[in-house]
Amino acid sequence: MSPDERAIRDVITAWLRASAEGDTATVLSLMTDDVVFLVAGRPPFGKKEFAAGQDALATHRIEATSDVREVVVDGNLAFARSQLTVAMTPVAGGATLRRSGPVLSIFRRQSDGRWLLSRDANLLSVV
Amino acid sequence: MSPDERAIRDVITAWLRASAEGDTATVLSLMTDDVVFLVAGRPPFGKKEFAAGQDALATHRIEATSDVREVVVDGNLAFARSQLTVAMTPVAGGATLRRSGPVLSIFRRQSDGRWLLSRDANLLSVV
Repeated sequence: MSPDERAIRDVITAWLRASAEGDTATVLSLMTDDVVFLVAGRPPFGKKEFAAGQDALATHRIEATSDVREVVVDGNLAFARSQLTVAMTPVAGGATLRRSGPVLSIFRRQSDGRWLLSRDANLLSVV
Repeated sequence: MSPDERAIRDVITAWLRASAEGDTATVLSLMTDDVVFLVAGRPPFGKKEFAAGQDALATHRIEATSDVREVVVDGNLAFARSQLTVAMTPVAGGATLRRSGPVLSIFRRQSDGRWLLSRDANLLSVV
């Protein structure tokens, strides 16, 4: 595995860990300022809307696992394809919501060498 | 607009035109052999399954428009983000089905210089 692929997989791992810990600041540090998230049924949205969504999720315990199927790097651009599974359980108690599906993510290498998430198409559906 | 961006937009335009004409051979020529399509609610699939789906669509007239929001190229890798709108009308008559949503597509430059679709995440939903 190339150092770049390793670095991108580490970003994904750090993202999931920070999400599980409710550490929104760390999650936000792993994406570019011009990040665009694509999900079905709503217009594409950016970092500000993502952050607002994280705040709303503070009422849930999030457990997510990502099976990274491939990482392809060329120059300062890369993509990763993963199978994501998410379980969301209300902190106050209640049924766990489960979602699973493929994710296609674009990463871009920054001038300081870090790889950050730049575009993310999330095809989670109810399981 | 760079020559590469122009070439990638031309692939998208050629794809839509060929789809509208039911010209599956041309559509298949615009993707890599290892292409992966991601849609919600089913496992990722490849060129063979895509071709089978096109055959099934022969019973419909397809009108699709793509509003390409951005094309980013780095080396031999590129991505395009589009808003796709599709109307499918049964040739035998009947109600038109309409779908719309964002699409995130990865293109790769081949050794002969052509850009081909390599990965495609399609977030169409009912409109």
